[in-house]
Parts: sequence; C-alpha cells; structure tokens
Amino acid sequence: MNSEQLASTLLEQAVTELSRLPGVGRKTALRLALHILRRDEQEGVALGESIINMRRGIKYCRICHNISETDVCPICSSPARDSSTVCVVENINDVMIMERTRQYGGMYHVLGGVISPMDGIGPDSLTIDSLVERVAAGGVREVILALGATMEGDTTNFYIFRKLAGFPDVKITQLARGVAVGNDLEYTDEITLGRSLLNRTPFAESFQS
Amino acid sequence: MNSEQLASTLLEQAVTELSRLPGVGRKTALRLALHILRRDEQEGVALGESIINMRRGIKYCRICHNISETDVCPICSSPARDSSTVCVVENINDVMIMERTRQYGGMYHVLGGVISPMDGIGPDSLTIDSLVERVAAGGVREVILALGATMEGDTTNFYIFRKLAGFPDVKITQLARGVAVGNDLEYTDEITLGRSLLNRTPFAESFQS
Repeated sequence: MNSEQLASTLLEQAVTELSRLPGVGRKTALRLALHILRRDEQEGVALGESIINMRRGIKYCRICHNISETDVCPICSSPARDSSTVCVVENINDVMIMERTRQYGGMYHVLGGVISPMDGIGPDSLTIDSLVERVAAGGVREVILALGATMEGDTTNFYIFRKLAGFPDVKITQLARGVAVGNDLEYTDEITLGRSLLNRTPFAESFQS
Repeated sequence: MNSEQLASTLLEQAVTELSRLPGVGRKTALRLALHILRRDEQEGVALGESIINMRRGIKYCRICHNISETDVCPICSSPARDSSTVCVVENINDVMIMERTRQYGGMYHVLGGVISPMDGIGPDSLTIDSLVERVAAGGVREVILALGATMEGDTTNFYIFRKLAGFPDVKITQLARGVAVGNDLEYTDEITLGRSLLNRTPFAESFQS
C-alpha cells in the first residue's frame, strides 16, 4: 500500500487508526475497514461506540491498579476475598489468567509492566511504590510474586523483594517453577528441570491439596 | 476464554464487538482491547470515532457502486477519464488494486461479489442489472471483465457475457491469463501455462506498449 492515499478520506482515517493496533499493518487495516463497510451500519457504529465507551469508562482501581468501572475494583471491595494476601502481577490480563485458575482467593497488585531497561521501563514507571505503601499500611501477611519467568520478571521480583525487606513479618513467595503439568521430561528445558529438582516437594503433599 | 465474563462489562462489550472482525478471535480481541486501554484516551476515542464516521459517512456511488463520500464518485465524475470503457471488478478493494497499476484510465463497475451458489450469492445479489442499464444507456464501447481467475469468477464472467449479448457493438474483454511477470515456468501451474500457450502474443507487441 505504501503511503498512497485511498479514495475516501473517511476510509483513510479509519485505516490509519486501525493500523495503530498491534499486529495490524496497513493492508490488514484496509481489510478490516472494508469488512466494516460491508456489514450493517449499526454493527460498525456499535464497534466504534464500544471502543469509545470502554476507553472513556474504564478507570483503574486506586488500590490494586486493575481495570475497574468504579474507584475501587470488585476484587478489592469484595468481603469474600482474603485481603491479607497480595498477588503481584505484570498486567490486567494476568489478573484474568490467575482468576481463571479458580485457585486464588486473595487480592492483586498490577504493576503495569516489569523492569526492562532495554525498553526504558524503570521501577518508577511501575506501581511498586504503591505496593510498598499497601504493605506498610498493615494487614498484608503474604506477597506472592507472580511475574513471568523471564529475566525482566526475575529482576523485578528481586527489586520488590529488596523494597519489602523492611517488613520481616510479611512472607514473600513466588510461583513454583517446574515441569508443566502434562509435559514429558524430554520437552522440559534443563534450567527448569534443574530448578524443579532443587525445589522438589514431598510426594505425600501432592495428595493433600 | 470460553464464554466467561470479563471483569468489566465495558471491556466485555468492546471485546465482543472486536471479535466480530474477520480473523479476530476472542483472545485477539482481548489483546486489542487491552492495548487500547494502555494507550492515551484520545487515541482510543479517535479509533472509535474514525470507525463510526467512516461507516456513517461513506456511501456508494450510484453509477459504479464504488465507495464514495458523494452521490457520484470522483472516478465517475472525472472528465479526464475515458467513460467509454468500463472495468468490472468484484469489490472496492479491486478498484484500488487496479488503480495502483496506473495502467487504466477508464471507469469501473463494482459487482459487490461473484456468483457463488455455495455461499448463497446469486446474480440478483450483485449489481449486474445496473451494469446492463449502464451499457443500454449508450456510450460504452468496451466492458473489461476483471474478476478473479476462479470458478466463481469464470461463472460470473460468462453470466455477464450472456447478459450483454444484446449489445453487439460493445466489445467484451477479460484480463489476460498467463505466466506471472517474474515467475519461472516451473512455478506456473499447467492450466495457466496451457492458457498462456493458447493465447500467445506476437513477440514484437511486447516492445510497443
């Protein structure tokens, strides 16, 4: 397509905006725009309005920084959840992933990313200070570090661990690393296998949970 | 994701609408929505508005059925273009593709599809009657059939050819089928190769155009 102008400036604008989406080039954006034009007017308008309403209506929870339509999100304001456990995740998608396990009944803290000097993301771009404030306010007994098992995730884990060193009563844990359930050993890389050997768990415990 | 509800109904609505786009499943729709949430509010609103404006603002040219912001599109109303030649294409994207060759200075006629009984598309769903009316109104000397070289394209070509049989003064042509420029013979299928042998052109003509 190059930078060639399309027949209609309205089409041109929609294609330009659509191509800002991740993984959407100009050619895909044009395909999407032409699809929208072929469908009912109401369907296209509903798509546009849902994007505007979402972007304008969704705020961030002032406690955990997850998305929320209210000042405090449903998870943070739920009396059924254990407010003494805070699970630190990278982004709002990870909250949804954790919730899908149905294994967790505590609170979250959404960092908004991981420390990555290569991408210009330092600790100040994240909500780490807010996490420290939450812990300092009391009531938190465990902080679960649930970042990805990447170098950036490990760096961020360690940074948070250091930041929370002043609260000896707060237990800091991280997600277990090991052989994925359903995987054969031959598909598990050596580092993971090495870690899962070091952190081996008593066999009897696997019946209890 | 299954049919599980997301944390926010606004997010849920946007994901549902986005996942109606072709090639966008629920997981991709969520990724797009989260991307929009991460960016500036103005960027998300601009995307939504551009879609609404496009869908509401773009009409179809009443002559050639290409998209247009006016009653008659810029191509049909251009005095610089040859109104005696009409190139029949499947959809508005094909108009852009033809224009990009910079080899064509005539008019277009956008069918809106090709005859495909499997997809429930009969001649009545297309703008074939409108094409016959254009030809009947006079002034058209050549109709170029520029549909895809598929079975549906061939069927549609033949249907149009029959419909225009009553206008013996109008020349009906189709795009040449042959070896793609830049392709070796070994990458050309036998049918195409057979056709390009049957329709071989005098070598001297290749210098002239």
